[in-house]
Amino acid sequence: MNEDTIVAISTALGQGAISIVRLSGDNAINLVNSRFEGVDLTIVPSHTIHYGHIVNNDNHIDEVLISVFRAPRSFTTENLVEIHCHGGVFVANKILELMLISGARAAQPGEFTERAFLNGRIDLTQAEAVMDIIEAKSDMSLTLANKGLDGVIYKLITDLRTELLNIIANIEVNIDYPEYDDVEQLSNEILKPAITSLESKISTIIEQSHFGKIIRDGIKTAIIGRPNVGKSSILNALLREDKAIVTEIQGTTRDIVEGTVNIGGIILNLIDTAGIRDSEDIVEKIGIDKAKAVIEEAELILFVLDNNQPLTDEDKALLEATNHKKRIVIINKNDLSRALTHSFENSVEISALHKQGIDQLESKIRDMFLSGTINVSDQTYVSNARHIAKLTETKQALTDSLASIEMQMPVDMVEIDLKNAWILLGDIIGDNSSTSLLDELFSKFCLGK
Amino acid sequence: MNEDTIVAISTALGQGAISIVRLSGDNAINLVNSRFEGVDLTIVPSHTIHYGHIVNNDNHIDEVLISVFRAPRSFTTENLVEIHCHGGVFVANKILELMLISGARAAQPGEFTERAFLNGRIDLTQAEAVMDIIEAKSDMSLTLANKGLDGVIYKLITDLRTELLNIIANIEVNIDYPEYDDVEQLSNEILKPAITSLESKISTIIEQSHFGKIIRDGIKTAIIGRPNVGKSSILNALLREDKAIVTEIQGTTRDIVEGTVNIGGIILNLIDTAGIRDSEDIVEKIGIDKAKAVIEEAELILFVLDNNQPLTDEDKALLEATNHKKRIVIINKNDLSRALTHSFENSVEISALHKQGIDQLESKIRDMFLSGTINVSDQTYVSNARHIAKLTETKQALTDSLASIEMQMPVDMVEIDLKNAWILLGDIIGDNSSTSLLDELFSKFCLGK
Repeated sequence: MNEDTIVAISTALGQGAISIVRLSGDNAINLVNSRFEGVDLTIVPSHTIHYGHIVNNDNHIDEVLISVFRAPRSFTTENLVEIHCHGGVFVANKILELMLISGARAAQPGEFTERAFLNGRIDLTQAEAVMDIIEAKSDMSLTLANKGLDGVIYKLITDLRTELLNIIANIEVNIDYPEYDDVEQLSNEILKPAITSLESKISTIIEQSHFGKIIRDGIKTAIIGRPNVGKSSILNALLREDKAIVTEIQGTTRDIVEGTVNIGGIILNLIDTAGIRDSEDIVEKIGIDKAKAVIEEAELILFVLDNNQPLTDEDKALLEATNHKKRIVIINKNDLSRALTHSFENSVEISALHKQGIDQLESKIRDMFLSGTINVSDQTYVSNARHIAKLTETKQALTDSLASIEMQMPVDMVEIDLKNAWILLGDIIGDNSSTSLLDELFSKFCLGK
Repeated sequence: MNEDTIVAISTALGQGAISIVRLSGDNAINLVNSRFEGVDLTIVPSHTIHYGHIVNNDNHIDEVLISVFRAPRSFTTENLVEIHCHGGVFVANKILELMLISGARAAQPGEFTERAFLNGRIDLTQAEAVMDIIEAKSDMSLTLANKGLDGVIYKLITDLRTELLNIIANIEVNIDYPEYDDVEQLSNEILKPAITSLESKISTIIEQSHFGKIIRDGIKTAIIGRPNVGKSSILNALLREDKAIVTEIQGTTRDIVEGTVNIGGIILNLIDTAGIRDSEDIVEKIGIDKAKAVIEEAELILFVLDNNQPLTDEDKALLEATNHKKRIVIINKNDLSRALTHSFENSVEISALHKQGIDQLESKIRDMFLSGTINVSDQTYVSNARHIAKLTETKQALTDSLASIEMQMPVDMVEIDLKNAWILLGDIIGDNSSTSLLDELFSKFCLGK
């Protein structure tokens, strides 16, 4: 438990009905009690709420409700008190100030969650999931974040670590008691298949993290096409509100329209394509670096054509330039007579004006990125970039260990790579006390030795 | 108790650690329980907190703490539940949505407080004080709002009403049992002194409400002076931060600098005086309507002069134009040699540049508006404009009743004015059920009749 008591306003700043000033630490209950007019908070049970006033020298600062959580049954596992005051900025700050004067220390951003982690209530992936929940923008990303918070990622990583530990234990036993095994036999019959199996599992997780990242972070999307084909109208239809300006005049969309669209649960992060779509001389423009960069940055190109006009050289140049990307060709204005003679592999006909075909477009995007069959609630997707990077490094360490085996290196050389993999996986969940591997190993051993 | 259960997000919207979704109504506990994975909330005691998850078809929406308040021990006196979820906008809205689907109704702004009022837990002045606390910008305004919340205004008004009721009761007794009193004697010996005393009390309250209004709403302040005398520097010194742009070039302050300064507990609401101070030809400008309007609107003129320069015609014109207002002459740049020969009644010498004399300026403003001796915590100040207006009408009704007595009108004509005063006072605290006067009167009578 921490010696100092930290305090912060835990609700968003602004005018609301309620603000919460939260304190955590050994002295949290005593400290609030010294400024509270009501029952004696030091003797109330945990998880109870008490009406009264926060006072400063008998002056009422605010009428409040106090929630008391006693160690270890709290978010931080420490004594924790929440002061629920009225939702004004001044009054919440006044109470915060009073708590600081009374001996609390202003909490650093995230310090409550950090204490929950340091005190062992949650692991690092759960701490990160708290932020994911706060920043969630779609049902699927919220579901994913909740799985993180519920410890699903933690379990995934600890299961991998258990497998790894078994492998390391086999080596340790062999090093300590070499009479038990033949090294070559150990390497080929036990280590190699076990490491290969583990490496393959991690590969699958990394591959599928692609889905996780899309669910969590969305898809970088560029809407591209010649002037006046209806890009802004399509954007509006997707946004389901009038955000972009739509006019009949060519090249009017001069504003940077960057936004987030939630289509059928997937977030599209729209890239500003003003640099491409504003120019009438788009063929020339396409050559410049900025346009190329936009196309390269995009994970999805929504390529818009006008059903009422034949394919132009500009269109052909743009099609050529985006050929290597995930792309959906949107044939807009399908309420007008057909002048477009080409057909396209991955296309959808719509009328942005009459809001027709938008659903088909949405499901096409969904199918393309989530394979249509994805089920967030049944599967575990790693989505955090930090986790993916660590898993990729882990995989590399396992590949290295397999190479060492192939090269018939001494088994303790193999073990170095495996121990590195252990540390990398530990980084994900925040478990790398120098003793943790030894502890786990010894608990594994338990052969009466 | 209300039949429908209302729901709203009660914390300010935005990213914070915690958001609260609040429900009130008969069915609040059952309704949340139907979406809660954890203990059975329908059987837990009031004022307790329970850990669990909000779920939708077994999907975790968020990890939450639930606070349960059972009728009548809640803010609204109804069953009340608070869902403490993570502080994201999406997740809080998701939970709100789930509660709406489950049968709750979206609350109107202020509806929780309205229910507290309608259910008799608080009177109208206390309901208004809730908003005053949320909007408080200084210690004194917070103290004033807390007095309102604690029922001090309610008690003030009900005490006045009790006095009024005694007077009305005397008349009623006389009308019902005219043998008991002589009408003229009643009017002159009992009614007249009693009404006069009550009228005088209300007059004092109205006069002192001046202090209340200043504490609650602040002082409309215009900083006026020729270009380059240091108005922006003084503003910055008062703000104690660099908000306005200060330069050596004349007339640079073209931005509308409107803001709020808390000086020694009093709020100065700074009026945009760009219309006056921007013109080099200030003498001419002073004649135009806008400048006059700014001066008239101001409750305080901070008139800035340059210590280093003699009084100009412009200064004289500005002094003349603001002569009838509460005004403090600020002689700025007192670190430079004296060129100003005039002396002024209500002046203070400062150096805005070196932040010297600012404290004296602040205490001068305080003395001017709060008489130096004001003690918010010991006295009751009415500050709400609605209350003041109703008190002013009440006073008028009493004056009218006294005029009726002077004109020897029938005593039931006098009573009409007094009953009107009763209703006006009732409007302040929100007590005007048609039966309330009769109820009170009959409870007064109780003479075995």
